[in-house]
Amino acid sequence: MNRREFNLNLLCAAGAFALPQSQSRLRINGQRVNTHLAELAQFGKTPEGGTHRLAYSEADLKGREYAMKLMREAKLDVSIDAAGNIVGRRASGDPSLKPLIIGSHIDSVPEGGKYDGDVGSMGAIEVAETLAENNAALRHPLEVIIFQNEEGGTIGSHAIAKGLTEKELNLVTNSKKTIRDGIKFIGGDPDKLASVVRKPGDIAAYVELHIEQGGILHAEKIDIGVVEGIVGINWWDVTIEGFANHAGTTPMNQRRNALLAAAKYIEAVNRVVTSVPGRQVGTVGRIQAFPGAYNVIPGKVTTSLELRDLDPAKPKMMFEKIQEEVRQIERATGTKFEFKQTNETPPAPTDVRVRRAIDEAAKQLGFTTKFMPSGAGHDAQEMAHLGPVGMIFIPSVDGISHSPREFSKPEDITNGTNALLHTLLKLDAMKLD
Amino acid sequence: MNRREFNLNLLCAAGAFALPQSQSRLRINGQRVNTHLAELAQFGKTPEGGTHRLAYSEADLKGREYAMKLMREAKLDVSIDAAGNIVGRRASGDPSLKPLIIGSHIDSVPEGGKYDGDVGSMGAIEVAETLAENNAALRHPLEVIIFQNEEGGTIGSHAIAKGLTEKELNLVTNSKKTIRDGIKFIGGDPDKLASVVRKPGDIAAYVELHIEQGGILHAEKIDIGVVEGIVGINWWDVTIEGFANHAGTTPMNQRRNALLAAAKYIEAVNRVVTSVPGRQVGTVGRIQAFPGAYNVIPGKVTTSLELRDLDPAKPKMMFEKIQEEVRQIERATGTKFEFKQTNETPPAPTDVRVRRAIDEAAKQLGFTTKFMPSGAGHDAQEMAHLGPVGMIFIPSVDGISHSPREFSKPEDITNGTNALLHTLLKLDAMKLD
Repeated sequence: MNRREFNLNLLCAAGAFALPQSQSRLRINGQRVNTHLAELAQFGKTPEGGTHRLAYSEADLKGREYAMKLMREAKLDVSIDAAGNIVGRRASGDPSLKPLIIGSHIDSVPEGGKYDGDVGSMGAIEVAETLAENNAALRHPLEVIIFQNEEGGTIGSHAIAKGLTEKELNLVTNSKKTIRDGIKFIGGDPDKLASVVRKPGDIAAYVELHIEQGGILHAEKIDIGVVEGIVGINWWDVTIEGFANHAGTTPMNQRRNALLAAAKYIEAVNRVVTSVPGRQVGTVGRIQAFPGAYNVIPGKVTTSLELRDLDPAKPKMMFEKIQEEVRQIERATGTKFEFKQTNETPPAPTDVRVRRAIDEAAKQLGFTTKFMPSGAGHDAQEMAHLGPVGMIFIPSVDGISHSPREFSKPEDITNGTNALLHTLLKLDAMKLD
Repeated sequence: MNRREFNLNLLCAAGAFALPQSQSRLRINGQRVNTHLAELAQFGKTPEGGTHRLAYSEADLKGREYAMKLMREAKLDVSIDAAGNIVGRRASGDPSLKPLIIGSHIDSVPEGGKYDGDVGSMGAIEVAETLAENNAALRHPLEVIIFQNEEGGTIGSHAIAKGLTEKELNLVTNSKKTIRDGIKFIGGDPDKLASVVRKPGDIAAYVELHIEQGGILHAEKIDIGVVEGIVGINWWDVTIEGFANHAGTTPMNQRRNALLAAAKYIEAVNRVVTSVPGRQVGTVGRIQAFPGAYNVIPGKVTTSLELRDLDPAKPKMMFEKIQEEVRQIERATGTKFEFKQTNETPPAPTDVRVRRAIDEAAKQLGFTTKFMPSGAGHDAQEMAHLGPVGMIFIPSVDGISHSPREFSKPEDITNGTNALLHTLLKLDAMKLD
């Protein structure tokens, strides 16, 4: 068989179907999606040119109204679910099939950028609008979801995937509201949260377009990242006990300096994490020294540890190596370390079939691709509880994110949105459930 | 000549005179000075058994009243000078000679101990009382001074040695009062400060008994430390600029991590300071990382540097070596360091004749001695502007200071007070001015 037949065979083996000629020619409107992105950026705009659109804030409310207007223009039936997520349904397809879902979020971190979440949200709406204006029929029902409060811990998608606990509802968010009050503020109903919870198998697939937030695609000049999964996140609080003493009168060899121990620990974390091949990351982001004066040897330091990887065995291995180093540091400095784990989010691998659909769709559009983990958490990790998920990354210039300097090029946004459209069309043609 | 004659010759060469037989037999009352110390410890006593007697506090006022009562019992003419120092004068001696001064302070750091300053203050009063009850005549006039607010920057002794500036008078102290208001609170008169300023040559000598605050005498089982000088103190504020970024999405080799740079810097300071022989100390006591979250690579760190030594050339040399290391750290981590000096107190060497008098007095009393620097600042460094100074150290158990666990043994306090008495008698017999 020739190369084309060979490729077709591979597609069929993966459960994919060839698209009708008319669908394979569909393209989103790049100018329109970038215009929408610029218009959305007006809500919560900061003097530095970034976005301050905290979940449950006035800016969030305005941004959501704008998104709902666009969704209605894209011929979606728009509603706000009890958890406050914006859900746009396309009244087409076979109602016996589970829905295909695309979406993202529009809330931002404090003093963040105008691409994180916004690109995937405006991209998903653009895909719906392209389908509508071309009267393109899908086999599956389609939902576009703008999840609420992603930055505060993927709250909206968590409400759909697993439900929210009383404890979670009482958490105070960056906008000073509890999640319960926030949900009311944006039009949800905290008393009816049970109605939004879905079960595993309830969705055909979920695909999310997002900026990479790292610098790999930009540095390697690659158009599209095919996300292999969202890394697991492990956090520890670390306490180091030494002995506070007079910095003038205590000879160097009689000190039990908790900050010197912390310095050796920070270097050890960096050494352990970079000593094995792979894309794992490890970070010490917090530190406080007590009493914290020029002239007192620190007797106590509180600090942190974060380890992330797609393979859950790797953080475990790194943590054990760090512990070995810590035992040596304790002996060398006369200090005592204590680690208390405060977060353990397991990795969420994406679905192999969805990855392949993204990769093929992107390549057929003429884009270069790279398989890679997502180092950041996303709503897709929640949706992975319900069915197959996939994520499409586009380059972040210089890898800057959660910053007013966050930037993705308009052509990359157009490319990513086209990749999302054609991934959706491929998934629609596949037997997923 | 025999050994005794040889020693006598040495004494005469040093300007010392043999003491009358009656004076060389004088001993202070060890039980009394330790009782006074215990009674003083009642003012500002903390639940942990330490002392919280901040300058210009109610506890300070009560402690000062107690000290003045003891001074009057020791037959001293007691007054409070315009700067708030307590001055007790002994009406004897040749009025054409400059005064010999002994003393210390009774204010404490927050949550401090009951020996720092208190030992030297009660010891000086005990010496005066011993002289009084033995009708021992001195050639020089004698002053016992309890300097105010030593812990807040040797304020009382600075007022005598150099005067206080408007800026200094407006500083807010730990007791929340400005120094100006504090001086009024303890019975001084900020409008008459010029009256307390003395000129170089105005004193015959100043000798201060103090706890070591370090652990050298205790560890080496030595009775008396003969202080060679008070080390110079140099402080810098250090700012490290990197780039804050997402800890999940930024690969290890693309980071400009200001906290990793800080860790390397803290280790470099320790390495440089311990790489040369000597008693120099170097400390990084303060640190803050920005933004300070588990999941953000720190983009900025503010930290500190303190370097102390008796030889002013040594901190300069260490600072240059640290700068060399910092240049390498900047290149390795993609960060930028900035050092801003915030304090530069020069070393204050003690007078060679006073050192020798202390050493001889202690040895004649049967004590072991060690020549050593004072790593901490003291009122003696201010008094060094006016004439010859010396300091007598007694052991601090385990070198603990500025802590409720600060402790010196009663017999060491007795020994130190006897050494102070006999040093004073030796100095009185010498031609100092």
